[in-house]
Amino acid sequence: MKEFETLALRYRSGCLELLDQTLLPHEERWVYVDSAQTMTSLIQRLSIRGAPLLGVGAAMCLADLAERGASQDELAAAADLLRHARPTATNLAWAVDYVMRRGDDVVAAAEEVLAMDIAMCEAMADHGAALISGGEGILTHCNAGGLATAGIGSAIGVLQRAHEQGKDIHVFIDETRPLLQGARLTAWELKRLGIPHTLLCDNMVASAMRAGKIQRVCVGADRVAANGDFANKIGTYGVAIAARYHKIPFHPVAPQSTIDLSCQTGASIPVEQRGSKEVRGVTGAFGTVSWSTPNIGTYNPAFDITPVALVTSLVLNSGVYTSEALDKGVLKQQLTNRGIKVCGQ
Amino acid sequence: MKEFETLALRYRSGCLELLDQTLLPHEERWVYVDSAQTMTSLIQRLSIRGAPLLGVGAAMCLADLAERGASQDELAAAADLLRHARPTATNLAWAVDYVMRRGDDVVAAAEEVLAMDIAMCEAMADHGAALISGGEGILTHCNAGGLATAGIGSAIGVLQRAHEQGKDIHVFIDETRPLLQGARLTAWELKRLGIPHTLLCDNMVASAMRAGKIQRVCVGADRVAANGDFANKIGTYGVAIAARYHKIPFHPVAPQSTIDLSCQTGASIPVEQRGSKEVRGVTGAFGTVSWSTPNIGTYNPAFDITPVALVTSLVLNSGVYTSEALDKGVLKQQLTNRGIKVCGQ
Repeated sequence: MKEFETLALRYRSGCLELLDQTLLPHEERWVYVDSAQTMTSLIQRLSIRGAPLLGVGAAMCLADLAERGASQDELAAAADLLRHARPTATNLAWAVDYVMRRGDDVVAAAEEVLAMDIAMCEAMADHGAALISGGEGILTHCNAGGLATAGIGSAIGVLQRAHEQGKDIHVFIDETRPLLQGARLTAWELKRLGIPHTLLCDNMVASAMRAGKIQRVCVGADRVAANGDFANKIGTYGVAIAARYHKIPFHPVAPQSTIDLSCQTGASIPVEQRGSKEVRGVTGAFGTVSWSTPNIGTYNPAFDITPVALVTSLVLNSGVYTSEALDKGVLKQQLTNRGIKVCGQ
Repeated sequence: MKEFETLALRYRSGCLELLDQTLLPHEERWVYVDSAQTMTSLIQRLSIRGAPLLGVGAAMCLADLAERGASQDELAAAADLLRHARPTATNLAWAVDYVMRRGDDVVAAAEEVLAMDIAMCEAMADHGAALISGGEGILTHCNAGGLATAGIGSAIGVLQRAHEQGKDIHVFIDETRPLLQGARLTAWELKRLGIPHTLLCDNMVASAMRAGKIQRVCVGADRVAANGDFANKIGTYGVAIAARYHKIPFHPVAPQSTIDLSCQTGASIPVEQRGSKEVRGVTGAFGTVSWSTPNIGTYNPAFDITPVALVTSLVLNSGVYTSEALDKGVLKQQLTNRGIKVCGQ
């Protein structure tokens, strides 16, 4: 297997390693992935995250096992484990299926998944950046960057490209409770990239929109249904409603590997519910605190579903699709005409 | 001056004391208020908070100074300091003006402010509870309870009354970043009151609404403009937009002392901007952590303005007023017909 290194995943000297994202931005620690069990556990604790990167990570985990001589039965068991590590991001299932269909050539298939992900990021960046005008304030939620993909990111890739084009953008980062992917990960990435940015709490978005600070919203996606409804990190739906109220363009940005044609609408997308501890406080490399009353009951869905009616346009690697086009089934048509295999096809 | 004790303010043995709300729910520590300077500092660090209680606290601080023999000049200087301790809650100015107009009888005037606040809470609770049906899930944001008033609260008073009436309500509490008044203070109050409740992050509200968990929203207010626009804790405006999108009734609940007729619309209400440290992490009796990149720039308004168009009805101590009635100027009419003095009148 060829060596490679992306922002948060690498293979070198025969070792698959990932950058533990729960520790960012305070500590950059690479963790060795020795088995599908380890990878599954790291996925579930969000040490590796981001729908596209979950797909690449699972594919590379299988390739590494194959490289180390795993039997077909062992590979099948590992694939089953990885496929179900988390329920919402469809890229996991897509990548595992893509690799396992090529029983004799798992390593080459995983390398294709990696290369496709990098290429799709570049294409999304080109299509998305074309939408952006100079001087825009752009809100992004959670993290859809180099930490969430094998390339330059989905939503953040678009921002990076616009920045490279000299468009003088300013990015507003939602902190993204409960796990703070915006405050921790997107802040870290944008600082690295030298893109001007401002952090705000999730509940300040509507105020910033009303104050005229935000002209566009770009977010990632964990699963896009056939009609254009999509799942993304909890809070995305509220941002979409606020954007619509203020007549601000709202764009999910995703590679085709995030599309699941077996889900006709967002109602079919499973949403992961997580434990109470995350809502009762925070934990990370910065420490652990709990601020509410002990044992308080919580509501903690990890994702929400944004209906296509709130989407201005979806930026895919293949182009930009309006809400109307999505609602008319353009995803089914354009995927049928392309080489990429998607879930449910 | 007569002794009294409310949930977070008391006068006994000649000492004015307040319950330090920055330490709740972990520690219940009463702090002695020895001067207007001390009170102003405690207001600015949110040890005492909630628009109505700020008014009562300022009034009692002046009464205590008068009781201890302060001159008219000293009282005037103290009044000026307290009046400008924080810019958004109009009750501060209202209460200070109410007391200072009665130069010779400051103590009696402050006792009237206290008694009025308690009585207005009871009246709001009666009017608001009449709107609530059995079995409703009701969202509240920040804290508008006994900790924010001298009585049973504004929004939480309504919930308490409905609960007493056996209406089987379930309260959803927004955590209310950055200072977590929902997670810390409302959670503490509802536990004390025995009202069933669930905590969620601010960005989960739209998801909970879409899931059918929320049938009504009740919030407090820090200043109500003549046309019914109102300021309240940051995040309220986003909740109002989400409620409108889901066709869920949305009610600010406030005493008449929160009305400022000198503000024709919400555009005239000053909004306090606070420092970056609050957004970069959290601090409290539970500890201090900072999770973002060092020195990241932030946007941190303490309040936002909700336009009257998003209000289903405003619950005042004098009754319930629909968005249409508010927009037609009912606040000016009904205040002119009543004894209570409001700012700008």
